[in-house]
Amino acid sequence: MQNYVVGVDVGGTTIKLALFPVGERDICTWEITTPVKENIDTIWKAIAETIRDKFRDLDLPIESLKAAGIGLPGPIREDGFIPWCVNLGMGACYPGKELEKELGVPCAANNDANIAALGEVYYGAAKGYENAVLLTLGTGVGGGIIIKNKIISGNRGIGGEVGHFVVNPDEEEYCNCGNRGCLEQYASATGMVRTAKRILQKSDRSSALRNVKMISAKDVCDEARNGDDIAKEALETYGKYMGLALAHISLTYDPDVIVLGGGVSRAGQILIDAVTKYLKEYTHIAPETAPIVLATLGNDAGTYGAAALAQGLL
Amino acid sequence: MQNYVVGVDVGGTTIKLALFPVGERDICTWEITTPVKENIDTIWKAIAETIRDKFRDLDLPIESLKAAGIGLPGPIREDGFIPWCVNLGMGACYPGKELEKELGVPCAANNDANIAALGEVYYGAAKGYENAVLLTLGTGVGGGIIIKNKIISGNRGIGGEVGHFVVNPDEEEYCNCGNRGCLEQYASATGMVRTAKRILQKSDRSSALRNVKMISAKDVCDEARNGDDIAKEALETYGKYMGLALAHISLTYDPDVIVLGGGVSRAGQILIDAVTKYLKEYTHIAPETAPIVLATLGNDAGTYGAAALAQGLL
Repeated sequence: MQNYVVGVDVGGTTIKLALFPVGERDICTWEITTPVKENIDTIWKAIAETIRDKFRDLDLPIESLKAAGIGLPGPIREDGFIPWCVNLGMGACYPGKELEKELGVPCAANNDANIAALGEVYYGAAKGYENAVLLTLGTGVGGGIIIKNKIISGNRGIGGEVGHFVVNPDEEEYCNCGNRGCLEQYASATGMVRTAKRILQKSDRSSALRNVKMISAKDVCDEARNGDDIAKEALETYGKYMGLALAHISLTYDPDVIVLGGGVSRAGQILIDAVTKYLKEYTHIAPETAPIVLATLGNDAGTYGAAALAQGLL
Repeated sequence: MQNYVVGVDVGGTTIKLALFPVGERDICTWEITTPVKENIDTIWKAIAETIRDKFRDLDLPIESLKAAGIGLPGPIREDGFIPWCVNLGMGACYPGKELEKELGVPCAANNDANIAALGEVYYGAAKGYENAVLLTLGTGVGGGIIIKNKIISGNRGIGGEVGHFVVNPDEEEYCNCGNRGCLEQYASATGMVRTAKRILQKSDRSSALRNVKMISAKDVCDEARNGDDIAKEALETYGKYMGLALAHISLTYDPDVIVLGGGVSRAGQILIDAVTKYLKEYTHIAPETAPIVLATLGNDAGTYGAAALAQGLL
């Protein structure tokens, strides 16, 4: 009998799911709406129910479901405990154990950025590598550390929180986390825009960006590609801080490969080049640096990674 | 029959050895002189010979030797290959395989700073923990990363090279590695002295350090403990850069414990306090930080760690 696992990616508005025959690629993905904060306690029942419905729809015996993995937007310790999950309004619990109660099969949970990294290692850009780091460059900067095919989230669950590396102790503005000078303040999409605006303000050089009403990270990268001086300087600053953070990661556990995902990574080679330049500069003692590649799973990284986590339970 | 392993710590002038009954503490340690660079090829024969001699002296059957571990002052890849070893004048080789040929039992090699970290995890300050980082604060700054009881040296062997984290990109003086602003330039014994001298030069405040002919790291820590203003400022700078580096390590793999060894660590609690202050500041999102403790094995960390590496081969 073919066995199955399910990968569950819990977000603030939707819960994405993917059904995987063990050892193969997904056969279907679907999603349901995340319960509102007041009813967040019903989340585990809702997930179990939609999985059972899907097995019924596909005429698969529910006994062939062997495990599930869950990604959540919060800090999860290695033992599976989550002290809080602000986005969902969820209190302290063991999400894996909660879903296990409803579903009756082994379930494991981890932070969504870590899960996405596992997805890229099992099915995406880092396939074939055992040791990788994924940085998801979106509104914020998420990080996931994989060593010997396992997520490393550490003693207090702060492993992979690369977005909060202080890369500029002299920064005066605050990061969302309450600290100042975090990588996220420079390497997120908003961070790249902020840097460009700062340079525009300080200088009176002409720039195509001056004609853009609402500058986006894409605008900055596009104009840098067009040779715009200010945009190039913003990208250089981006490369410097990202390169510094990646250098410290490299000099800690020296991953096989560095994967960049999220909206900002769509800039492609020009971004990779800007970051690689400083990664090399800041790892002077290294004979060579880890290759930087682009994530390939996009929005599926979460469900795929959760399915990989589930397969690890078998 | 009781089985044995030997831990070998190869330094520029002496080779230290320790004999361990499997699963127990060492029964004896001894040392021989490191062959001069011109005869460095004879090193494996010399090590094998002194081990056989020791077994004969102790009336132990050489068949009870089951494995050996070697620590070397150079960059070793995870597959055991060392591209060069400047201090010894050694060229590219697989040290584990070389000793294995002479000794006829499984042998493994790793970088001496990594080996020392393994020693502290198996027998010293980090005993009982699976995940640790050891920083050896001496003339330079060595680092060793242990995750799930294993040394992590990474794809290119630069894992644990924490001493070369660039913590001050604005530094103008060069590190021994050729880069500028490395942690080693601030957190080594010479680094601490350099910082104190810089502060003395820039200021005309009185300080007990002005009466010291050859300022040492110990002088700086002693005077800071006595309340000397300039010494306190130097220690604060030390804490800031060390705290920053340890924060980035914590936000990467969140070790259970941080161990400080080497000459500078003898300053004790005042050093731990200075570093912890900034570790906390630079890991703002963490509910708590890993405890910082002092190494306990001293000069034995190398042979003990090498013995732990050997036991891992059984």
